[in-house]
Amino acid sequence: MNGPQPGGTERGTARIEAFSDGVFAIAITLLVLEIKIPHLQSGSNLLRGLLDLWPAYFGYVLSFVMIGIYWANHHYIFKLFTKTNHALNLLNLLFLLFIAFLPLPTEVLGEYLLDRANQTTAATIYALGLLLPAVTWLLMWLYASQGYRIVDRCLDESYLRWLTLQYIGSVALYSLAVGVSLVDFRWGLGICVGLTLLYLLPPRRPVYSRGKAA
Amino acid sequence: MNGPQPGGTERGTARIEAFSDGVFAIAITLLVLEIKIPHLQSGSNLLRGLLDLWPAYFGYVLSFVMIGIYWANHHYIFKLFTKTNHALNLLNLLFLLFIAFLPLPTEVLGEYLLDRANQTTAATIYALGLLLPAVTWLLMWLYASQGYRIVDRCLDESYLRWLTLQYIGSVALYSLAVGVSLVDFRWGLGICVGLTLLYLLPPRRPVYSRGKAA
Amino acid sequence: MNGPQPGGTERGTARIEAFSDGVFAIAITLLVLEIKIPHLQSGSNLLRGLLDLWPAYFGYVLSFVMIGIYWANHHYIFKLFTKTNHALNLLNLLFLLFIAFLPLPTEVLGEYLLDRANQTTAATIYALGLLLPAVTWLLMWLYASQGYRIVDRCLDESYLRWLTLQYIGSVALYSLAVGVSLVDFRWGLGICVGLTLLYLLPPRRPVYSRGKAA
Amino acid sequence: MNGPQPGGTERGTARIEAFSDGVFAIAITLLVLEIKIPHLQSGSNLLRGLLDLWPAYFGYVLSFVMIGIYWANHHYIFKLFTKTNHALNLLNLLFLLFIAFLPLPTEVLGEYLLDRANQTTAATIYALGLLLPAVTWLLMWLYASQGYRIVDRCLDESYLRWLTLQYIGSVALYSLAVGVSLVDFRWGLGICVGLTLLYLLPPRRPVYSRGKAA
Repeated sequence: MNGPQPGGTERGTARIEAFSDGVFAIAITLLVLEIKIPHLQSGSNLLRGLLDLWPAYFGYVLSFVMIGIYWANHHYIFKLFTKTNHALNLLNLLFLLFIAFLPLPTEVLGEYLLDRANQTTAATIYALGLLLPAVTWLLMWLYASQGYRIVDRCLDESYLRWLTLQYIGSVALYSLAVGVSLVDFRWGLGICVGLTLLYLLPPRRPVYSRGKAA
Repeated sequence: MNGPQPGGTERGTARIEAFSDGVFAIAITLLVLEIKIPHLQSGSNLLRGLLDLWPAYFGYVLSFVMIGIYWANHHYIFKLFTKTNHALNLLNLLFLLFIAFLPLPTEVLGEYLLDRANQTTAATIYALGLLLPAVTWLLMWLYASQGYRIVDRCLDESYLRWLTLQYIGSVALYSLAVGVSLVDFRWGLGICVGLTLLYLLPPRRPVYSRGKAA
Repeated sequence: MNGPQPGGTERGTARIEAFSDGVFAIAITLLVLEIKIPHLQSGSNLLRGLLDLWPAYFGYVLSFVMIGIYWANHHYIFKLFTKTNHALNLLNLLFLLFIAFLPLPTEVLGEYLLDRANQTTAATIYALGLLLPAVTWLLMWLYASQGYRIVDRCLDESYLRWLTLQYIGSVALYSLAVGVSLVDFRWGLGICVGLTLLYLLPPRRPVYSRGKAA
Repeated sequence: MNGPQPGGTERGTARIEAFSDGVFAIAITLLVLEIKIPHLQSGSNLLRGLLDLWPAYFGYVLSFVMIGIYWANHHYIFKLFTKTNHALNLLNLLFLLFIAFLPLPTEVLGEYLLDRANQTTAATIYALGLLLPAVTWLLMWLYASQGYRIVDRCLDESYLRWLTLQYIGSVALYSLAVGVSLVDFRWGLGICVGLTLLYLLPPRRPVYSRGKAA
């Protein structure tokens, strides 16, 4: 860790993974701070006040699971990487910028989902909050997989193509969720929930074409 | 950390432990943010204002110790595990979801324990906040220990059964605490405190039946 | 990390150090959240509003340095330890409980140092907030060093006695700071600042009596 | 990690790097908490309320990128270090004190950039918030590089001089940004943004003069 290493811009991925893990763990744990418990006047009904917060709990669970899934996927794709470089670091930082930002649209959703005048805006903002990390994730992956720039050269080409299609599909579906939210916020959020459930499926085992097959 | 590893879904437990440790450390440290110091008008008595917050300090200490104990127990059972898989990761994530949520019922307890109209609700919510991680912990353990799915095959069966009984007992007692809180919040909280004191006892040394006995 | 280890209660110190480091890093970074910037009406003077927060900045710097010093000292004494056990884990947890609590007295100091009616209370609470971790630190050390229970058997006895005296001295001086604050808060805080400056001195090199001398 | 190590004040850099990484990851993730979403009365326009927060988003992105760059640079220079000592630890702590403080000027910028009476103050405070870590960074580097006190003896002298000049340049430009902000806050912030874009360039590969050249 201390000795000089040749190559100032290409390095192993341990450091960037540890830093990203830190941001994931903190962002996921900060979500609860965005839920503001009601400050009732003595005599009011606390239970009702807490139950009325259900959109905030809904947002908490959905965002928690999303960040948890991104954490798992982050490890999944970084295992396919053999190194990192300056551009990948910057793309990863951009991705983390939107992960760390998620508590904000989650708070917006929790506070305004029941406000008739603003529920469409709130759901759309939330879907947008999920679209942005998906887009930067795709950019990171395209940069890394393009011509085996960062990914392991032994990985099977069709496996890489399969991952690329999957990440493009995510971006397409979140874009759809944003658009649908504008028309009917219930359906828009439904797409977000459905995508999250899809992500809960076990990830595919990496396929190596040259000698390293599992 | 970077090279490809065979088996996309079964892995060592180092990563999941590090991520869980992060969530434990952050959740335990965020608890203090839920204590709101009084914003007094000049001339009011600060000492009285701070002393009146005693339910918040009580909740802080209890939740801090609970999360600390879960942290220790998490290491304890993950030492018995030889690997992790996708389902265990998801169950662990669900458990962490409720750990990270604990600051909220803690804040509710602190703010409403002295409000006669809502103190029963506040104590019940808090007991529920402790029950939920206990339930998901039990689910995680049942999944892992069932037929030596995740746990070390060398562990003694009766030792595993003893742990299972202990975790079922926790769930039963926290359920009791929830029920009792509805009738008398003092007794409900008393059960929570008693359980915490029980957990402070040193954990039992793992028992191996085949060759690895300590 | 995964394999079973003999001895369920005695272990290496890596885990407890990593968890403690997490709590130190989070508590030190949360301090800034306790400084509330003024929400001025348009046209009011922001600069004056920010300058009026100087007690909050003073508390921020003092608490930041204190936690940083505890972090360094934590590593320093854990290097002298050869293992950890259940009791030490609990004492360490108690110590961390007061470290994680420090943002609260810091906020109290920042908000009430200029309020004539409450400045004595605020300074005393802050000195108390520094006394509590010092006391639990001493307890942890006494437990660990007593009869070489946890510390390396090769350490020189007079060196251990020197550390014990130093930690007792800290407790004595913070107790003094609490008492003096009640009489004159300026002198009480002065003792706190002085102690902090003392801690900035480099720590003494450990002395080994049997073969391992540096 | 547990065994005694000779030399109580000179050590490897792994610990200090891990602690610093924690502070970077937490400070970067806390930034979002400083953005307060509007609490509208039912019927008001949420979208407008969220769009009006654009100075807060601007500050979020700029501070996020700045902390991310400092994180990368911190690894970059600590790779050049062969050890750490007490003085370096203290200088690093001082640097982290200002990194952890950054959320505050960021909040000031977000809240007051559109307030005509205070926008000059807000921008100047923000530029000052960026100047302070740059100054302490320079101090840390000067201490470490002076006469190869901490840096690897094999590093080329002209390479070290080049880094020194670069860090002095940063301090000069941030000082300029502070001064310019007082005259025209737009230009002052422009310099801050420009400097950030400069930092996004890939770092120079370390140059070794004696045998270890890459």
